[in-house]
Amino acid sequence: MKIETILSPLLFKHIDSIEKKIVVVIDILRATSTITTIIDHGAKALIAVVDEANALKYKNEDYLIGGERNGETISGFDFGNSPFHYKKNLVKDKTIVLTTTNGTKCIEISSNASDVVIGSFLNLSAVANYLKNKDKDIVLFCAGWKDKVNLEDSLFAGALAQKLTNAELDDSTLLCLDAFEMSGKNLIKTLQKSNHFQRLERKGVIRDIEYCCELDTINIVPILKDGLIVKS
Amino acid sequence: MKIETILSPLLFKHIDSIEKKIVVVIDILRATSTITTIIDHGAKALIAVVDEANALKYKNEDYLIGGERNGETISGFDFGNSPFHYKKNLVKDKTIVLTTTNGTKCIEISSNASDVVIGSFLNLSAVANYLKNKDKDIVLFCAGWKDKVNLEDSLFAGALAQKLTNAELDDSTLLCLDAFEMSGKNLIKTLQKSNHFQRLERKGVIRDIEYCCELDTINIVPILKDGLIVKS
Repeated sequence: MKIETILSPLLFKHIDSIEKKIVVVIDILRATSTITTIIDHGAKALIAVVDEANALKYKNEDYLIGGERNGETISGFDFGNSPFHYKKNLVKDKTIVLTTTNGTKCIEISSNASDVVIGSFLNLSAVANYLKNKDKDIVLFCAGWKDKVNLEDSLFAGALAQKLTNAELDDSTLLCLDAFEMSGKNLIKTLQKSNHFQRLERKGVIRDIEYCCELDTINIVPILKDGLIVKS
Repeated sequence: MKIETILSPLLFKHIDSIEKKIVVVIDILRATSTITTIIDHGAKALIAVVDEANALKYKNEDYLIGGERNGETISGFDFGNSPFHYKKNLVKDKTIVLTTTNGTKCIEISSNASDVVIGSFLNLSAVANYLKNKDKDIVLFCAGWKDKVNLEDSLFAGALAQKLTNAELDDSTLLCLDAFEMSGKNLIKTLQKSNHFQRLERKGVIRDIEYCCELDTINIVPILKDGLIVKS
């Protein structure tokens, strides 16, 4: 089993034979953490879209729409981007349409992969077990921030690599693994130095960050199936 | 003082106001280590070129040319790529033309920067002191391998960031710093896992790798000046 890590969508072009590989999409703050929460709370499916206009096309009685603009829930939307908005009683058996710029782009780029999996610290062990059972080559695809490398996605790649012992790691994965082993034991403290933490702190969503750094609180694996994200 | 790290030339486009910043070009195995050695051995100047044809244009009595193809010194060239080829008595007061694919590309891309500096583990502290004295924002530019992230360049970025205490670090730099703090104390052992080490090992140049991992054996800083690399 080989593991490659893509630290920014701009580096995805290095991946070959994607159709034989499993891609884990990683956008820790907050898209893939929120998606994992929504699927765990019993949503029937989730559609990730890149912007407000795409989301509004789905507006009807059967779909609920989530997303933010400048930290505020968008007019006509049912939820913002915080995982805390998606309570069980609101999302159970519903299809959720979620706007997420960086995460959606990664899902679209990876759509030819053998499998596309949604990863977050919340379901770290569940994703690791899923990957062990599949026993295919793996691409850890960090969404980053506007095509830049970010710390939280990179550290998650390291955390996942740490669980997949005996895999053959490329240099990007080795870098993430070493960094996670250095500082991942106190994720919040480590991420306080990061650029995204400081952006979100200004928006007052520290509670979201703390939530997204919880390990193994969720035991399901969201996967992409026919354009929809569903429970595996 | 801010530090940004570029982990692959494909990510260089994120840098703005480059003309106000110092760029440190990093291509540990072996270009920037070899360049540092050549300048330390008293060469008058070094011209980095991307390929054999460009190098041969300089062929004349006053210039010596170095480079390899598939691990062998090229016909008509005076040296290969190993730092051990460039002995003091051969390079002193000469201008050396060196072919280096990844490193040269980085030097060319950065040529609008306020300063372009050549960094390697060999002159780590000398580069750190040079940067402290300049007190400008810094870009640590990892050459990588064919636009992919590599471990040795990333760890050097972490090593340099560790010396520049009180600087404001972007997420890529934080990632490299954490990784260096985890595993940089035994560079050779860490790099044995890396892809480039394995490529060079197959070529039988382990001695070169060991040389390139030595810390602070050289106390000069090569810089780019009017298209030539010279001692600062």
